[in-house]
Amino acid sequence: MQLATIRTADGTRAVRLDGEVLVDLGYADLGELFAEADWQAKAAAASGTTHPVESADFAPVVPTPSKVICVGHNYTNHIKEMGRELPDHPTLFPKFADTLLGANDDIVKPAETDALDWEVELAVVIGKEVRRADEQQAADAIAGFTVMNDISVRDWQFRTIEWTQGKIWEATTPVGPYVVTPDEVGGVRPALQVRTVVDGQVMQQDDTGTLLFDPVFLVRYISTVITLRPGDIIATGTPAGVGNARKPQVFLRPGQTVVTEISGLGTCTNKVVEA
Amino acid sequence: MQLATIRTADGTRAVRLDGEVLVDLGYADLGELFAEADWQAKAAAASGTTHPVESADFAPVVPTPSKVICVGHNYTNHIKEMGRELPDHPTLFPKFADTLLGANDDIVKPAETDALDWEVELAVVIGKEVRRADEQQAADAIAGFTVMNDISVRDWQFRTIEWTQGKIWEATTPVGPYVVTPDEVGGVRPALQVRTVVDGQVMQQDDTGTLLFDPVFLVRYISTVITLRPGDIIATGTPAGVGNARKPQVFLRPGQTVVTEISGLGTCTNKVVEA
Repeated sequence: MQLATIRTADGTRAVRLDGEVLVDLGYADLGELFAEADWQAKAAAASGTTHPVESADFAPVVPTPSKVICVGHNYTNHIKEMGRELPDHPTLFPKFADTLLGANDDIVKPAETDALDWEVELAVVIGKEVRRADEQQAADAIAGFTVMNDISVRDWQFRTIEWTQGKIWEATTPVGPYVVTPDEVGGVRPALQVRTVVDGQVMQQDDTGTLLFDPVFLVRYISTVITLRPGDIIATGTPAGVGNARKPQVFLRPGQTVVTEISGLGTCTNKVVEA
Repeated sequence: MQLATIRTADGTRAVRLDGEVLVDLGYADLGELFAEADWQAKAAAASGTTHPVESADFAPVVPTPSKVICVGHNYTNHIKEMGRELPDHPTLFPKFADTLLGANDDIVKPAETDALDWEVELAVVIGKEVRRADEQQAADAIAGFTVMNDISVRDWQFRTIEWTQGKIWEATTPVGPYVVTPDEVGGVRPALQVRTVVDGQVMQQDDTGTLLFDPVFLVRYISTVITLRPGDIIATGTPAGVGNARKPQVFLRPGQTVVTEISGLGTCTNKVVEA
């Protein structure tokens, strides 16, 4: 199934993609749907109102997750290419619900920075509450996968040793358009092509099959520390090719369009606009 | 006013301290109260059911804040004593709602660590939505102050360069017992004595008047990055004397009691227990 949260005149609605239409599932958003124990059956069976796909206004797949946890340094090729040792543990940092954007929303460049950067990421969406999950529980807790563009404000990210303040800027981080269930992408450790394209130029390209810490591992690791709840989001890290690491550095400018895409999951297409 | 969220047989309730009783304010928790535009007037006027203070079971002052943002390296004396330069910007890191505990709850030491440490902190609770607040807006957005013990799992904190995974452990961080309004503590930049006592031994002691980045500055700074919402919590950093920096290092052990207190705000008293 391909599931989404769209904005309508009556507020947000959880929907399922059926060909050219989006079928209303009877919930305000996917967070509400995933909180149901038998959400898969309910989502599959629903036959509510339909909305045309071509005019859909996508909200963040889950508009108010209780937590968004992101991973740094996770693509093996990129780590090796940089001459770094493979790390023993994933590096974790946060985003907040207020940081998220819909898949096709404009990214408003904050006036406080000229160092706005892209990071395409495979994101895991949680469909079941888990703490200290074993392998099977972790696999079962994955509702599906989506695309995140982990937009980063690099100058603020590196003001101090903690990245948080460069990662949580309001309404900067597209996540969507769909949560695609694992059965449609080859399981809970999918090998998918990830790509970032800025104004037609490919900036990042890699394969999620090369992740050092895979989705199941990350659910186990993070749930050791804290309960993962339905609707929570884990972003699994970004491959080589971010603007900050280029020589010379390049950052997003108003007027540009940044496309982040993952094979089988879809595309976030976001115009960068002046504040 | 001194306001709290307590657990009752009917769920949590927002209350006001009146001498020996807690007066029910008609809201499930302080987050709900602070979401009201005129919460000060409502809280002052309420005359609902009362609960005796001595048997009160304190919940986290706000059980589900949309964000908890903590500051590192903020006590001037401590920074100078360590021979460090005063930083230009505050260091920020997150906690999540699931990380919080009530003022007198047990702290369950996770089986995965033997490096559980204390950090007494003055915490700011937000009472009004603000973005890019100016000086006056930032001052007006402060509902009040409370005590936080920013419990840290040091071995996990230093597994990678980002502290997040050592700071967000489930149900580890007491916050309470009361949110005390600024008028009761000398305003929005209060000079209060902070202290941590472990089994009768004073471990930390300092004055919030020496904070490098004061509460108003922090509301301005963080709200530049992201909207602060009613109920959101900012922890302002900890003074010298944490267990991790002692020689030899000392950490919390099951059976010990850790008391974090701030003059005028109250005390969190937490027993450490085995998982």
